[in-house]
Amino acid sequence: MTSNRFKFTIEATDGEARTGVIQMHRGEIRTPAFMPVGTAGTVKAMMPENVRSTGADILLGNTYHLMLRPTAERVAKMGGLHKFMNWERPILTDSGGFQVMSLTDLRKMTEEGVTFKSHLDGSRILLTPERSMEIQRLLDSDIVMAFDECTPFPAEYDVAKESMELSMRWAKRSREGFNIGEQHADKSALFGIVQGSTYKELRFKSIDALAEIGFDGYAVGGLAVGEGQKAMFEVLDFTMPRMIKTTPRYLMGVGKPDDIVGAVERGIDMFDCVMPTRSGRTGQAFTWGGAINMKNARHKEDERPIESACICPACKQYSRAYIHHLIRSGEILGAMLLTWHNLQFYQDLMQNLRNAIAHQNLSKYAADFRFNYNAGDIPAIL
Amino acid sequence: MTSNRFKFTIEATDGEARTGVIQMHRGEIRTPAFMPVGTAGTVKAMMPENVRSTGADILLGNTYHLMLRPTAERVAKMGGLHKFMNWERPILTDSGGFQVMSLTDLRKMTEEGVTFKSHLDGSRILLTPERSMEIQRLLDSDIVMAFDECTPFPAEYDVAKESMELSMRWAKRSREGFNIGEQHADKSALFGIVQGSTYKELRFKSIDALAEIGFDGYAVGGLAVGEGQKAMFEVLDFTMPRMIKTTPRYLMGVGKPDDIVGAVERGIDMFDCVMPTRSGRTGQAFTWGGAINMKNARHKEDERPIESACICPACKQYSRAYIHHLIRSGEILGAMLLTWHNLQFYQDLMQNLRNAIAHQNLSKYAADFRFNYNAGDIPAIL
Repeated sequence: MTSNRFKFTIEATDGEARTGVIQMHRGEIRTPAFMPVGTAGTVKAMMPENVRSTGADILLGNTYHLMLRPTAERVAKMGGLHKFMNWERPILTDSGGFQVMSLTDLRKMTEEGVTFKSHLDGSRILLTPERSMEIQRLLDSDIVMAFDECTPFPAEYDVAKESMELSMRWAKRSREGFNIGEQHADKSALFGIVQGSTYKELRFKSIDALAEIGFDGYAVGGLAVGEGQKAMFEVLDFTMPRMIKTTPRYLMGVGKPDDIVGAVERGIDMFDCVMPTRSGRTGQAFTWGGAINMKNARHKEDERPIESACICPACKQYSRAYIHHLIRSGEILGAMLLTWHNLQFYQDLMQNLRNAIAHQNLSKYAADFRFNYNAGDIPAIL
Repeated sequence: MTSNRFKFTIEATDGEARTGVIQMHRGEIRTPAFMPVGTAGTVKAMMPENVRSTGADILLGNTYHLMLRPTAERVAKMGGLHKFMNWERPILTDSGGFQVMSLTDLRKMTEEGVTFKSHLDGSRILLTPERSMEIQRLLDSDIVMAFDECTPFPAEYDVAKESMELSMRWAKRSREGFNIGEQHADKSALFGIVQGSTYKELRFKSIDALAEIGFDGYAVGGLAVGEGQKAMFEVLDFTMPRMIKTTPRYLMGVGKPDDIVGAVERGIDMFDCVMPTRSGRTGQAFTWGGAINMKNARHKEDERPIESACICPACKQYSRAYIHHLIRSGEILGAMLLTWHNLQFYQDLMQNLRNAIAHQNLSKYAADFRFNYNAGDIPAIL
């Protein structure tokens, strides 16, 4: 095991919140961290050097998309995902499980794994914990996620229990499958995923089962699936105190800026979400005064930048009127500029949160953030 | 009239070809020049600073698109097209006439001008020489094109004659309409457009009529409309010797790399074409060994760059395999990288042509270019 495989240092705490750094051989990840999503080997509409310039330390790649196209074997042949997509820093890959469930039809779940039809060519594919580990190894992922079932919401207790227990058996097989790839395991990390839906007892059992297997970090799964912010925070309120404090805690698929602020207050260290990129492509821009829809006619002669405090090129070089014109005209540059801006906004938010924790000022920062963000005259369109 | 309104200096000649520089108050244009097309106030899928970095000295903007959206009046209100789109250097705008004819239905031509239905909202719009000049003034265009009728191809002699004569009357009205805007006329230039289809006698009459009105430069219009390279070069062969030698000569809407090489040999100084940008968005890449289709499966595991000699980021940072993956996946980054590469290729070609003329080496350069370009195993797909 190399000395810089995975090391998490908490540098400061403020209530339940923490700020620190994860050290890995491809670079440092400042926490709390937001990971832009690079689904198919690209953060959509962005050059990777510009993703980095916004302050991103790590990207997320999607196993499901990459295994279908260009295939994990081809990525490996081309030297791994980092070289393929020109991103030298850490990459976290999901296990594929969530997207098999959300993107495919005619899937069949067994103890062995899940069989599904490719959305690209209709071929039948079996994804198991072992195969998921192999794919993430072929991609040369830095942080590998255990293969699990994301329990649908809402779920009856018995359904949630059965689903969680299956995920825990798969977590054990994921650990074993990960360990088999010794060379890769020596320089990468494996995270387990806590399931259990909205049930405290199930979440506790899941946490304990994962702790017994042993992982480098622990994710909270099964949230941001339609339960709403209030229910999500309630789950975090009883889940987080039970989780190991010395390892990173990752809230998967979250979220809106105020979701992130609330989750950081509850002790989450890592986030990923398509919101800044996807909403950028559909004309939404994030500002400290709330999200705005750039398609709206009120921007058509507005000479101001989207956000005067922002250092991104969309704000430094262009008016709201111009970006409104691009979005209305369906121009690719509109998607490029709004994606860049939104990624900058998310990274600026993370930097603000890290600073606030370091200065024991998180409560005030979070209150001020929420006051301003909710004062905007247009609610977030997503 | 300001001293740096418009000055064309020919620095070297080689046969009929010339290389030089046009000086204008927003910057210099090295000739022969290729102007990337920024139809709706954006060179599609490109940041303007990156268009500049490829070596572009001037962009083309489309009057037709901009008059409909966001409208010329709104661009003027926002400080003009340069500020709006963040391009400080010269911009040439076409007159709108060509696109009214090619993009609209139900148009009606009279001596006054052309009435058409907007493709955006169906409204009826009258475009005249005077209105075209007003729009180009509102856009704050640096090189304004006279309003003309692009004679369809093929055209009977009598049709071509009538069309050319109408264009010449409109050229005179364009000159008058341009001069009315004194402040703008003091810092911009007006080009006339030679028509006459494939008829030598009509081309000569058009050249003489324009010379009598007096323009800062002269364009050859009515070509690249389906006549083929051979017929186009034949028209240039008899047209160019009659044209004024001391002013820039602009071949509108051309073209493929080998069209440009042949036209430079015949004395053309300026070009515009959507080919590098449009074909980039559909997966075509230009190389010195011919154009290649990046969708083709033969690229799927090719670790080489598109063109090893190229300095663009697509070639410096990515494999053909990766770009193939992006194009196959419909990723915006694929369009971004191929557009950038193709614009770099076109500007590199222009720099090579300027160097060859300066070194009296054009014949050999052109022969070598054609030999290599046509040796590619895949013909251009456009």
